[in-house]
Amino acid sequence: MRTIQCAADHRSVQVIDQTRLPGQLQWRTLSTLAEVAEAITSMVVRGAPLIGVVAAYGVALALRDDPTDLGLQASCARLIATRPTAVNLQRAVEGVRRAVAEHLPHERAALAFAAAEALTRAEVDACRAIGEAGLPLLQSAWDAKGRRGRLEVLTHCNAGWLATVEHGTALAPIFLAHDRGLPVHVWVDETRPRNQGLLTAWELREHGVPHTVVVDNAGGHLMQRGLVDLCIVGTDRTTAQGDVCNKVGTWLKALAARHAELPFYVAAPSSSVDFELHDWRQIPIEERSPDEVRWLQGVELVPPGSPVANPAFDVTPASHVTALITEYGVFPANSEGLRALRQRTLGAS
Amino acid sequence: MRTIQCAADHRSVQVIDQTRLPGQLQWRTLSTLAEVAEAITSMVVRGAPLIGVVAAYGVALALRDDPTDLGLQASCARLIATRPTAVNLQRAVEGVRRAVAEHLPHERAALAFAAAEALTRAEVDACRAIGEAGLPLLQSAWDAKGRRGRLEVLTHCNAGWLATVEHGTALAPIFLAHDRGLPVHVWVDETRPRNQGLLTAWELREHGVPHTVVVDNAGGHLMQRGLVDLCIVGTDRTTAQGDVCNKVGTWLKALAARHAELPFYVAAPSSSVDFELHDWRQIPIEERSPDEVRWLQGVELVPPGSPVANPAFDVTPASHVTALITEYGVFPANSEGLRALRQRTLGAS
Repeated sequence: MRTIQCAADHRSVQVIDQTRLPGQLQWRTLSTLAEVAEAITSMVVRGAPLIGVVAAYGVALALRDDPTDLGLQASCARLIATRPTAVNLQRAVEGVRRAVAEHLPHERAALAFAAAEALTRAEVDACRAIGEAGLPLLQSAWDAKGRRGRLEVLTHCNAGWLATVEHGTALAPIFLAHDRGLPVHVWVDETRPRNQGLLTAWELREHGVPHTVVVDNAGGHLMQRGLVDLCIVGTDRTTAQGDVCNKVGTWLKALAARHAELPFYVAAPSSSVDFELHDWRQIPIEERSPDEVRWLQGVELVPPGSPVANPAFDVTPASHVTALITEYGVFPANSEGLRALRQRTLGAS
Repeated sequence: MRTIQCAADHRSVQVIDQTRLPGQLQWRTLSTLAEVAEAITSMVVRGAPLIGVVAAYGVALALRDDPTDLGLQASCARLIATRPTAVNLQRAVEGVRRAVAEHLPHERAALAFAAAEALTRAEVDACRAIGEAGLPLLQSAWDAKGRRGRLEVLTHCNAGWLATVEHGTALAPIFLAHDRGLPVHVWVDETRPRNQGLLTAWELREHGVPHTVVVDNAGGHLMQRGLVDLCIVGTDRTTAQGDVCNKVGTWLKALAARHAELPFYVAAPSSSVDFELHDWRQIPIEERSPDEVRWLQGVELVPPGSPVANPAFDVTPASHVTALITEYGVFPANSEGLRALRQRTLGAS
């Protein structure tokens, strides 16, 4: 199953409404720029790679309504403003803009859909390749463990197929390992406040992968007690030094992994790397609505009058990342590794 | 306000039902051993010092019904079994047992109430003294900061007056600092799955102390970005080496504090120290019901079919504790410090 489907008549795209999961699998139709922007902002669609693809289609849908230079500029600006942290969004929108800008207005929409479809295919291929690249890391961890018990993996947030178009990033090697008979078991962090960990649990359950849900507080304890063999997470933006910006709480898990001397892998397509960015302090950390923390299922959890802060991401410096798992293979999380990855992406394009 | 009040006729105690907070302040009457045991297990009362006091009254109430040796033995065993991690519970129950065991059955209940009342007074005095002992640490942190902005404190779980009889442990120096005019601001972790952080928010709001609620995932980010000056938490059991066992998630915050080179203080009465225990791996970590994670306010959060684990505590090794704040002053978290503290407790008793 894919998370996004474009209508044959190019009048709309259908996406899974992730705010309804894990309770209900519902599709939502997006036909206009406004609907696409709202779906990204409200996290109907989420996950850096998927946001990029949806935004690319958003430009295409907007060009159906207004293919002028002004329309193109406005739709790109509006989509880029929906969420600040992931670099995929900006890159995908810019990619579509470049593909159509030099063409006549009436040609633009069709070209934009073609560009969005090409991006979709590229992201699917990248995630498939990430699975293949990560699999040997799980296999060798399993061998190193003497092939006893289960291979215990901890992940945070959701970097499964729901966060991408298909396959996932951090979950791609896990699905593959499970399919190839490795007895993998996944510790799934709840991931407050949006509980994307429960999307991960849902994906793993659907795929038949053994897993256990824990609160975000539990990961340090599990690692300290030898109940985790390695961690794999995704990333929304990776710097040219190999620092990774991912869902808030990732940094705490990386610290615990380092203390327990466990590998901490980060899986992401090269589209999540911001090769121009050298200082992780410059990554904009999205501050989302306090209501995400204050309210749950219509119940006000936080005492009225108590303020709430809700930073949505944090940065794990490259020093705490064992390696990056990408569609071009596994790279060390440092400037040499990122330079090598960039060379591969330039060679491919 | 105190969290527990004993009826003048010794027929019951009244406790604040903490499962109703922060929404409602409701009192509950406990008249029997069974009611006391249930109140502790279900976390109607919680917090290591308060659990100890309530259990002491539980022995006294049980002795009204059955003052025999067998009755005494059974009630002590039942109360000790309610929760395994905090050492206060065991120590309080044993204290009452010792105070009555050599006496005639018909004398026992009155003696037990007297012992419970003495314990109550001792815990109140200890918490008041913890506030006084911790205050200079906050004052010197404020001075070290050049008295600019606010003194930013992060805490986890609830170690306020609700967790004790009065004053609190980790919050006692904070309340005092606020009362003395220090511009303290507290970052309050939500503390999933039971959300005791919201009790902390409620206490701080009632006392007028500026604070902000964040999800448990956010603490590492806040510390990395220089938004925290120091951490203070409580502890349910401290070893003779100074290792502290506290609410799950504490360890992650201690790791982040160490990485950011911030003080990580642990405040507790000496009744929370297990002077006989040298190996923190021997502290029993309570595994609570998966339903605490799975359900919230009647809504099933976790996908049906996805298992849940729910360890309630974790251990922060002494290496990551800056100092222990006790009713006898501030001690280093190591075996010398704990020996010195023990000497003080022996001198006092």
